[in-house]
Amino acid sequence: MIEGEVAVVNRRGAQRIRNGHPWVFRSDLERAPAVAAGFVRVEEYTGAPLGFALWSPQSEISLRHVSADASRAPDAAWWHEQLRTAIARRAPLATESNAYRLVHGEGDGLPSLVVDRYGDALVVQLLSAGVNAWTETIVASLQELTGCTGILARNDPAARDREGLPREVRLLHGDVPRVIEVVEHGVRYLAAPWDGQKTGAFLDQRENRVLIGSLARGRALDCFAYHGSFALHLADRAEHVTAVDISAPALARVHEHAQRNGLTNIEPVEGDAFDVLRAWYREGRRFDTIVVDPPAFAKNRNAIEGALRGYKDINLQAMRLLAPGGLLFTASCSFHLSRGLFFEMLQEASADSGRRFALRAITGQPLDHPELITVPETGYLKGALLEAMG
Amino acid sequence: MIEGEVAVVNRRGAQRIRNGHPWVFRSDLERAPAVAAGFVRVEEYTGAPLGFALWSPQSEISLRHVSADASRAPDAAWWHEQLRTAIARRAPLATESNAYRLVHGEGDGLPSLVVDRYGDALVVQLLSAGVNAWTETIVASLQELTGCTGILARNDPAARDREGLPREVRLLHGDVPRVIEVVEHGVRYLAAPWDGQKTGAFLDQRENRVLIGSLARGRALDCFAYHGSFALHLADRAEHVTAVDISAPALARVHEHAQRNGLTNIEPVEGDAFDVLRAWYREGRRFDTIVVDPPAFAKNRNAIEGALRGYKDINLQAMRLLAPGGLLFTASCSFHLSRGLFFEMLQEASADSGRRFALRAITGQPLDHPELITVPETGYLKGALLEAMG
Repeated sequence: MIEGEVAVVNRRGAQRIRNGHPWVFRSDLERAPAVAAGFVRVEEYTGAPLGFALWSPQSEISLRHVSADASRAPDAAWWHEQLRTAIARRAPLATESNAYRLVHGEGDGLPSLVVDRYGDALVVQLLSAGVNAWTETIVASLQELTGCTGILARNDPAARDREGLPREVRLLHGDVPRVIEVVEHGVRYLAAPWDGQKTGAFLDQRENRVLIGSLARGRALDCFAYHGSFALHLADRAEHVTAVDISAPALARVHEHAQRNGLTNIEPVEGDAFDVLRAWYREGRRFDTIVVDPPAFAKNRNAIEGALRGYKDINLQAMRLLAPGGLLFTASCSFHLSRGLFFEMLQEASADSGRRFALRAITGQPLDHPELITVPETGYLKGALLEAMG
Repeated sequence: MIEGEVAVVNRRGAQRIRNGHPWVFRSDLERAPAVAAGFVRVEEYTGAPLGFALWSPQSEISLRHVSADASRAPDAAWWHEQLRTAIARRAPLATESNAYRLVHGEGDGLPSLVVDRYGDALVVQLLSAGVNAWTETIVASLQELTGCTGILARNDPAARDREGLPREVRLLHGDVPRVIEVVEHGVRYLAAPWDGQKTGAFLDQRENRVLIGSLARGRALDCFAYHGSFALHLADRAEHVTAVDISAPALARVHEHAQRNGLTNIEPVEGDAFDVLRAWYREGRRFDTIVVDPPAFAKNRNAIEGALRGYKDINLQAMRLLAPGGLLFTASCSFHLSRGLFFEMLQEASADSGRRFALRAITGQPLDHPELITVPETGYLKGALLEAMG
């Protein structure tokens, strides 16, 4: 590699890499490489070699470290091996579902790359300039490793703006249907890879749906139901499931999903969950099983305060609606709401409810969304199962 | 109730009770009741009624609130009903084990009372002057509710000193054997109610043993093995289990337990886990499954700093000993080490190890040790399952 292809980082940048975090911010770059996006060699300002990183010329996150081995520049064979390892880790999931994440970016040592499997189709997200430059190699490897019939790029997240990349949804290989049936622990629902939330479904909640589904009973309530994936799991054991969402099209999908599973005990209710739960409490309605799985209220660090008020309010409403002995599964997918803040929020809601709640389970991310303990950004989903003790 | 039987609390004490925490410290008592230990009526300094609490004349924790209902003083019928409810919650565990906790103090709304079941025998701990005053009533109710053949008081914790109560181990009813066989998810081991750790065994780790037992493989290592209850569960799926403990008598029990289960793949090793792991790392030994379940290094708040160094060191040693793809189940039972500090410690150990670890599961306390989210003191056990990503 010639000198222009070397990125030189300061002490802080080097320390970050040595502590297991792959990101080097522009402010910690002593000398930027004079090359286009892709792999670059990384050195500390002292000349100490730090291996290789993906380089994003326009991003605040200049480098994403991938390998400490300074003797071998990552190439097509490197991508193939990394992808093969990541895919192999998911083998145990194939018997439980036909939809799961194959690559979780930094969590799999493949920064800014997301690959989700929906049946025979793959949906990819190339979220940095460095990884985007390797699109063809990645697509070729994924075809070979999975035998998929189509690969769709859902390159529409805002993160692409910050990398100087266009936002687009584009077919990269074969054909990918508009809707794909997911079969998850016996429950069927439709994913929408072209235009659904995230890459088409909320794969990260799969094990949480199974958990609360296995414990559900009596009158169940699914707040922020979206397409009803929690409601479908609740309906197996609960007598009756109320699925609340503010979107009529989402509720139409809930209805369709219920029919697809032969379920007649799911009732879609259109409305703002905050208002609906408050009204039902006043009316004396109670539930034995409740799921609170709101959208990310905290989209960025500055929004935490308002988001905390929202999380606390909806959890307080749910706590008040629980019958004695009832179970609440509550989650947050806001990265900016740390696990510590999440539990503090639940503590405050519990104190305000005037009732006692026992923590029955704490959930993190499933096997296919690995959260690295040295890379907080790989973790965003946290959940708690609470039981009303009286 | 006459005036002398009323405890008057200040604003802070009242707020604490209203926020769901039962403890009122002596410093928040405006007027102490002029009666012996037992139940007293509680009022805010404004005269607002706050229900009833257990009263400990000599303790720093003067009051332990039990009921917000000011119209009914707790009596024998109240104890019976509370105990019945607590015992009924554990019903699902009876099919999995013959040993579990029936009453977890504050977690069950029965402050400072612990009741553990070992087969047909019960072990109780009466850890405050207030609850101690009701011993006979509690023993009578437990006999009626469980049909147990014996009840032993393991009233030997230091907490009794602070209540002005003697430390003693005393038979309260029938007969309790020196050792009792526990059958836990098919694994057999002996509990020692009269003189073993806690009330005779570590019941709180039952589900964690099952979790790591179900995932164990290859060469397994159980650090701080004590009587081998983790090792026994590991031995079912692992090829070979090394059980390290500093105590020869504990390892003799490991050997006996292995024989009892017909297991020939458990090897007891006597030594200090810190030294042993360090030496094995230098020798290049590696393990596929490791359990780190140390005793509580932080016995009090002032000991946290030293304890954190100990936890970090032993976890770092274990992380370095893991083969690629290996699993580490690590736990802390120190109340003073919060869940947040526990994860920070693991993050530092992981950074120092130079390896990447994914958080596969977070564990709290099982069904029979309810942790109330408004009463941090009910929670002390936290665990994490980590996978070496390379």
